[in-house]
Amino acid sequence: MCDFMRRGFLVIGNRAKTKPFNLNDLPGAGRIDILCRCVSQALFLSHSIRRNAEIYLLLLGSPNPPKAIKFKGNEIRKTWPDERNIAGHINKALSFEVGEKWFKSEPGIFVAKKGLEKLLSELSENYEIYYMREDGLEIGSIVSRMENPLFVLGDHIGVKKEDEEIILNFAKNIVSVSKISLMAEQCITIANYELDRVQSQREREISK
Amino acid sequence: MCDFMRRGFLVIGNRAKTKPFNLNDLPGAGRIDILCRCVSQALFLSHSIRRNAEIYLLLLGSPNPPKAIKFKGNEIRKTWPDERNIAGHINKALSFEVGEKWFKSEPGIFVAKKGLEKLLSELSENYEIYYMREDGLEIGSIVSRMENPLFVLGDHIGVKKEDEEIILNFAKNIVSVSKISLMAEQCITIANYELDRVQSQREREISK
Repeated sequence: MCDFMRRGFLVIGNRAKTKPFNLNDLPGAGRIDILCRCVSQALFLSHSIRRNAEIYLLLLGSPNPPKAIKFKGNEIRKTWPDERNIAGHINKALSFEVGEKWFKSEPGIFVAKKGLEKLLSELSENYEIYYMREDGLEIGSIVSRMENPLFVLGDHIGVKKEDEEIILNFAKNIVSVSKISLMAEQCITIANYELDRVQSQREREISK
Repeated sequence: MCDFMRRGFLVIGNRAKTKPFNLNDLPGAGRIDILCRCVSQALFLSHSIRRNAEIYLLLLGSPNPPKAIKFKGNEIRKTWPDERNIAGHINKALSFEVGEKWFKSEPGIFVAKKGLEKLLSELSENYEIYYMREDGLEIGSIVSRMENPLFVLGDHIGVKKEDEEIILNFAKNIVSVSKISLMAEQCITIANYELDRVQSQREREISK
């Protein structure tokens, strides 16, 4: 599979802790478990990693928000798809004092003290931004026209009104993967699935 | 959403431990982490549960295989989508000495000492059995003709040849969700997604 369709995800963890937390209680750390599953579903395949994908987590919980963490599929090492492993990497990233510039906490994992607007402003230079919301356009109807999309979505709480306003300033469109209210990581899996279908279609056309 | 499309999943955990294990090392318990994610993705929605879904885990690891565990979406209580929570329920189920008959370890969770053939023979009374394998028919091409499907799939190791022969004796067809080799829980999410689309289509037709 060639890598021409880059893809990204940004998940907002409204209450996700911004200091190291107890690995035995990820839900109690502001639902870090959700963010871990999002990383897992965004980057991992069976026995391999999506080298063309990256995921950004925006942690907005106490005591030191905002913190942004980036996982790059083509650079991570010793990262596995189980929640506890990914949580360990998040914990390590949160153990550093950082400023607004990305700091590499481990191969392929970066952390910075920056908020939604700064993050989206940076991401919009390399990605088409799509906001994922249930009442958006059905992803199947526009996925074939996407180029290097990055999907923004909320955790179990969703996206706060003021954050939504910021996202809509950057978003090319609002997309929906289902009329049913799915968990964040399920939305990511479905976006990858739809993008894979488009990519495979494009590859067939190129090879003709 | 009405519940007329029942759906089931059966995941084979080739090395999954068949006695209680350490919740701090789910991958080390024969990749119980994969089975937990499968349960999570099969049954959970955002803030709710698929009451029309159930998932069966077949644990084939040491020391006491085979063990089958069933989670019923419409009956489970105090079950959450994080791996550790689900692993706790599996652990509890494994703590009982059981025979071939289903034993209820908690609301909506049942355990039995039975192997693949017995399990599929039982399941085929209520479900159309589909075997999930990468080289199968594209799910999108046949999903609209499915009635109460149950999908059988393997963990990171896949499905052993002798188990595959048993499955093929019961399977109505072999289906694939992607040409890319995905993780088991991703296959489940995509099957649910495709089934939801069909269900929503059928509901629109009924309401006309």
